[in-house]
Amino acid sequence: MYNKEMQHLGEERSVIRELFDYGSLRKQAVGSENVFDFSIGNPSVPAPAFVQEEIRRLIDTVPPEALHGYTPAAGAPEARKAVADYIEREFGAPMSEDLVYMTCGASASLAIITAALYEEGDEFVVLAPFFPEYRVFVEGAGATLVVAPTDERFHPDFHALEQVITRRTKAVILNSPNNPTGAVISGEELKTLAVLLEKKSAEKGEPIFLIADEPYRELVYGVTVPFPMNYYRDTVVCYSFSKSLSLAGERIGYVAVSPKCREAKSLFAAVCGAGRRLGYVCAPALFQRVCAAALGRVSDVGKYRENRDILYDFLTKTGYECMPPEGAFYLFVKALEPDAVAFSERAKKHELLLVPSDSFGVTGYVRISYCVSRATIERSLPAFRDLYEEYHPRSC
Amino acid sequence: MYNKEMQHLGEERSVIRELFDYGSLRKQAVGSENVFDFSIGNPSVPAPAFVQEEIRRLIDTVPPEALHGYTPAAGAPEARKAVADYIEREFGAPMSEDLVYMTCGASASLAIITAALYEEGDEFVVLAPFFPEYRVFVEGAGATLVVAPTDERFHPDFHALEQVITRRTKAVILNSPNNPTGAVISGEELKTLAVLLEKKSAEKGEPIFLIADEPYRELVYGVTVPFPMNYYRDTVVCYSFSKSLSLAGERIGYVAVSPKCREAKSLFAAVCGAGRRLGYVCAPALFQRVCAAALGRVSDVGKYRENRDILYDFLTKTGYECMPPEGAFYLFVKALEPDAVAFSERAKKHELLLVPSDSFGVTGYVRISYCVSRATIERSLPAFRDLYEEYHPRSC
Repeated sequence: MYNKEMQHLGEERSVIRELFDYGSLRKQAVGSENVFDFSIGNPSVPAPAFVQEEIRRLIDTVPPEALHGYTPAAGAPEARKAVADYIEREFGAPMSEDLVYMTCGASASLAIITAALYEEGDEFVVLAPFFPEYRVFVEGAGATLVVAPTDERFHPDFHALEQVITRRTKAVILNSPNNPTGAVISGEELKTLAVLLEKKSAEKGEPIFLIADEPYRELVYGVTVPFPMNYYRDTVVCYSFSKSLSLAGERIGYVAVSPKCREAKSLFAAVCGAGRRLGYVCAPALFQRVCAAALGRVSDVGKYRENRDILYDFLTKTGYECMPPEGAFYLFVKALEPDAVAFSERAKKHELLLVPSDSFGVTGYVRISYCVSRATIERSLPAFRDLYEEYHPRSC
Repeated sequence: MYNKEMQHLGEERSVIRELFDYGSLRKQAVGSENVFDFSIGNPSVPAPAFVQEEIRRLIDTVPPEALHGYTPAAGAPEARKAVADYIEREFGAPMSEDLVYMTCGASASLAIITAALYEEGDEFVVLAPFFPEYRVFVEGAGATLVVAPTDERFHPDFHALEQVITRRTKAVILNSPNNPTGAVISGEELKTLAVLLEKKSAEKGEPIFLIADEPYRELVYGVTVPFPMNYYRDTVVCYSFSKSLSLAGERIGYVAVSPKCREAKSLFAAVCGAGRRLGYVCAPALFQRVCAAALGRVSDVGKYRENRDILYDFLTKTGYECMPPEGAFYLFVKALEPDAVAFSERAKKHELLLVPSDSFGVTGYVRISYCVSRATIERSLPAFRDLYEEYHPRSC
């Protein structure tokens, strides 16, 4: 009677969402201050004051029928121009407003670019651990997801990557700063990746695309995120303002096709066509204008850094194993037993909600979203200690 | 290198959008007051003052990280409840907030429901003339679009409809008030449709769904729009606030699955799964709250009625043939030659931008979107007269 695959996708709660909902119930039961919900990546730092000021300014100065009316499908011309100018100014990469497509956030960007690129038999390569919805979008387009492992620092393992990139590969999806590990790819690594993709493209006789999924670009702690278009020709950047401006619910981002892409104009047409087919008429009009005006501004990353430092220091001193995250707002911590799901269940008894790594494509870890209040971080520390001691009882 | 179908969908400008862009260029060339752009359905009446007030109130009272954060995928609980309560109160139809899914507007709703329902070999039936994007969404889901003609008043021709509904039919899409004709289905007609669908469902051994696409529900002139859930069990309503609140660019609407639907919960899960697959994380958070608070409010329909009356009276007195529209903001006028595209081209010489009916699935008509300023309506009248006289020269 219905599409069983869609029904399954709707019923199969994402593990993250399931934990989040469990947390809501627990908070009702034992008080919200006693539950340490590290499940979801919902920014806890408010949008910059400028965002609210700009909304007020637009409401006060632009007639509502113009402010809230349809924009062209690819976006309001002033928003597309602002994004292109920002990319040129900030990264020194040539960019054209004609190749900027405003979207309803990063997931929309990814669903659109995979549909725009897909041809029969295509594979899309991701580096594990990876954002679980990549599988949904890639398989939704009709393609196959191929997973390449990373090294012990969760950086690209180029040897492993080389093995899985074939003539069937349409694109490699790169997510840096990374969800769930916080790893940030270096300029040197991007250079190596570009050489590999150039070689594999030549073998294929067609470009293999680099899809750079960059919602965490500005959330970094002392490192610089290299801009992929400056390293590899056939690059498409998928961006979202969800995290940088703490606007996750407003669904606003963009797809930017590098002007150096082969047949960039045709690829951009396919992006527009995919947006149309998936039912995206235009990105939300008010926030297109707000974000265009706010380009370059970022929510207070210092707050996330404080959380990261407190939690990372405490956990590693306690005995947990964890790479220091260079960006995003996640810690990827080794579970204290091989089965991360069992470990996550045991953590729940301490009111710690940690996402097991299995749905990210690796086993034996949990993801901690530290985009919570500092008070939650501080109150959670004894629970983390207790959990550790459950596995490593102190000799009396 | 890319998906050719998506590229084609992106390059094949919709006729409406092409005329609209032509109009923008003409306005630059000859002055915007001299171009009569009736191409697009972008509301000209501002959103009710309440909308701007509610945005200000939310900005002033809700912390930004809560206001702009993710909502659950199906929508903010308060928005879903407000919609369910409104449907119960306004239409006396039983409704559950658990069956309301907030969307990024009507196109998203339609892309989602067709994907949620689609099984191999399915057909979706539309009544011509119909909104051209129906074809994009139905074919995008993998299904076949089947077109049934309507009668001379553009109301259902039940005999013709009966011929095309078969065991392959998954759903009938009903758009009342109608784009492009302004026709509104009556309660009697809905009863007849329900009997027909019951009979055909029994023959099929599975429900045939009624998808009620209702963005123009409140835009009516002296008639009442019957609520389909009160007539037919297996009904899904696709609603948008684009027209009723003049928020077309903000992309906000909902899918409501009737609790009387067979396996309503599973169908709702498929709706959630389709939303996830198409990249919709949640509907825009701020406008979910604004629209929940504004339920039942409508932009000033009186302005559209004035436009309708002036234009309809003038055109019919001049000699044009046209049914009086009962709702929406379109006039569907017989072209003065059999080829509507040629007629539309000739109208352009008078700076009249009229959409030929071919892409709506019928020949020989043009659509006039009268959601423009009254001044544009009044200034356009001599051009309509001149166009008519070109086809019917007065004897001197």
